[in-house]
Amino acid sequence: MRQVAIVGAAMTKFGVSEKTNLEMFAEAGLEAIARSNLEPRDMEALFFGNCLGDFEEGQLHMASFAHAELGLPVSAPATRFESACATATVATRHAALLVGAGVYDVVIAGGTERATKMGTPLATRTFAMASQAQHESSAGITFPGVFAMATHLYAHKYGIPLKDLKRHMAGVAVKNHYHGSMNPKAHFQKKIDIDMVLGGMMVADPLQLFDCCPFSDGAAAVVVANAGKAKDLIKNPIYIAGMGQASNGPLYLQKDLTRVRAREASIAQAYKEAGIGPDDLDVIELHDCFTIAEILALESFGVYDFGKAYDAATKGETALNGARVVVNPSGGLKAKGHPIGATGAAQITEIVEQLRGESGPRQVEGACIGLVDTLGGDLGTVCNIILTNRAN
Amino acid sequence: MRQVAIVGAAMTKFGVSEKTNLEMFAEAGLEAIARSNLEPRDMEALFFGNCLGDFEEGQLHMASFAHAELGLPVSAPATRFESACATATVATRHAALLVGAGVYDVVIAGGTERATKMGTPLATRTFAMASQAQHESSAGITFPGVFAMATHLYAHKYGIPLKDLKRHMAGVAVKNHYHGSMNPKAHFQKKIDIDMVLGGMMVADPLQLFDCCPFSDGAAAVVVANAGKAKDLIKNPIYIAGMGQASNGPLYLQKDLTRVRAREASIAQAYKEAGIGPDDLDVIELHDCFTIAEILALESFGVYDFGKAYDAATKGETALNGARVVVNPSGGLKAKGHPIGATGAAQITEIVEQLRGESGPRQVEGACIGLVDTLGGDLGTVCNIILTNRAN
Repeated sequence: MRQVAIVGAAMTKFGVSEKTNLEMFAEAGLEAIARSNLEPRDMEALFFGNCLGDFEEGQLHMASFAHAELGLPVSAPATRFESACATATVATRHAALLVGAGVYDVVIAGGTERATKMGTPLATRTFAMASQAQHESSAGITFPGVFAMATHLYAHKYGIPLKDLKRHMAGVAVKNHYHGSMNPKAHFQKKIDIDMVLGGMMVADPLQLFDCCPFSDGAAAVVVANAGKAKDLIKNPIYIAGMGQASNGPLYLQKDLTRVRAREASIAQAYKEAGIGPDDLDVIELHDCFTIAEILALESFGVYDFGKAYDAATKGETALNGARVVVNPSGGLKAKGHPIGATGAAQITEIVEQLRGESGPRQVEGACIGLVDTLGGDLGTVCNIILTNRAN
Repeated sequence: MRQVAIVGAAMTKFGVSEKTNLEMFAEAGLEAIARSNLEPRDMEALFFGNCLGDFEEGQLHMASFAHAELGLPVSAPATRFESACATATVATRHAALLVGAGVYDVVIAGGTERATKMGTPLATRTFAMASQAQHESSAGITFPGVFAMATHLYAHKYGIPLKDLKRHMAGVAVKNHYHGSMNPKAHFQKKIDIDMVLGGMMVADPLQLFDCCPFSDGAAAVVVANAGKAKDLIKNPIYIAGMGQASNGPLYLQKDLTRVRAREASIAQAYKEAGIGPDDLDVIELHDCFTIAEILALESFGVYDFGKAYDAATKGETALNGARVVVNPSGGLKAKGHPIGATGAAQITEIVEQLRGESGPRQVEGACIGLVDTLGGDLGTVCNIILTNRAN
């Protein structure tokens, strides 16, 4: 396989938008192409992510219309991917695999979502379609419920009083909102404090409002090229060092809600391909859909032992200028926002900018290796991409 | 790229089923794996197609649950593809590309759909979501309408009286239902005659009931392996000679409804890769969603000149034992049925069985090279796969 690089990456502001999915994707996609010093006609394929365009806008088959909005050639195929919240990461992984294989030299990948447009009464039911319909969502399971159960199990398994665990989880929210306050693209750009988190309304006991990420509108896109060509296009390609993707759909196959089996399989693939381990990571954008989710992810990565990541944020180890590794400098899903089908490409965009030293006040000094982590459904899909600013 | 083969292929009976999408896919998938002399644990990835599981069953993120139904390993990622009616062909193409690239040795691809479960009042509106929502479906365009317009344009452009053209289109329906009468997996297994077609109720002038394919429930799956391994598994691998995929989403970019631009780009890719031309084809499974669609496709392939395929069926040139090339021996979408996200994998299954000489009474004698053609949306996506029973 050839070495593969990201040459351009861009995202819209995340938040509440009146634009359509296609308008948002065109904004991010055309900017990613321009930042690559390329034209739409140079794209050889589109790997496009969207989850709920049919429910949002009555739009299925959206990849072919995104292709038209970007003005791509007819011979460049557009393909839609859907892996729940991991959608855009999975789309980008397939783009990178086919560039690595030599099928294509330059392709565009990304995703878009209008997640604020679902209508409140039906929103949770709509999003819960990403859990198993026959056995889970029909029984009333929603995503806040799954992560609430994981929180109780974590407290019980490791003997941490729930009240203490909740305070440490609040630390994750405070950290990510602090990071988001420095990100002009973030949905929420206000700092919060632990008392605000602990005073929030109850969503699914013990998860309160600020334990939960918002749903957002937005789009993000990246241009993927073979490394040889990348160096001719721009001065600072960001290379893909390793990737992983794994599946473990229904909760009845999960065994232990505090350990996401698909993540353990995915990160193992990515570490092996990259030839690195958890100690080599400088910056991580991970799937903090709920505060507990950040804690579980850091343990799956091996950055912390199991049962040991719960107080990482309150100890300041995962904040900007933290002692260990900077986690979610963009603000994460918690503060940057979560337009489902776009999230993975926005995580990649953040890591690309961090590894280029372009992140301004939230720059992780000297960052060389970054990890992207996206979780789909109630633990069913995980996709990881490790990026570096150093060529092989 | 390594040579790639189909080692196992299977489909459920198409028609009206009370099974879920996952149950149908498990039936086809496990049979395809068994026919490959493999076990589920041998699969390294799942390339899964489904279009409307969220509308049908409240099920998004279906690939990860199909993965569980088949009992695949956690490390084998499951990815959902959606390209409207071309969904399963696109999923299989990506599977084959990644096996060809050496990323995987053995993967399973396919799709499933419960298309009879949409509810009649909303069914046409639901399926029309695959056309452009902002400019097309909102203006009342549905798929029968698009192909009705194409029929009028074809008659006008080539100076064929509409009455004559309709009789020849009826010949396509009669031929495909005749083929379907020999296919125990077909949705419709009864022969019809031209008077029945011309006496059918009007759907979208000039298309009558028998000019239109049904929507069906069903699933189909294929196991894709590298050619070296394929020969160790089974005695009769079917090789992928060439593939194509192209996009031209909205109708406003179509220019001429009688010439599907995405198909012309896709088939050119496939012919080039296979090193063959239209005269080399022995058998074709093409996207006859409407009778006119078969005529247009044969012209895009170069099997007939533009304006010359309209009477191919009535002249007997495309029927079993026809003089030119056998088209849709399975019965096609017209008679075999059209479970949207499964259709492409069922077309591949038919060609695989034809090239193995396993098609019984509808066997195309001496068939060596077969073409699969699937169209997504109102002309927005086309994917082609050329198969052969001869190794390189």
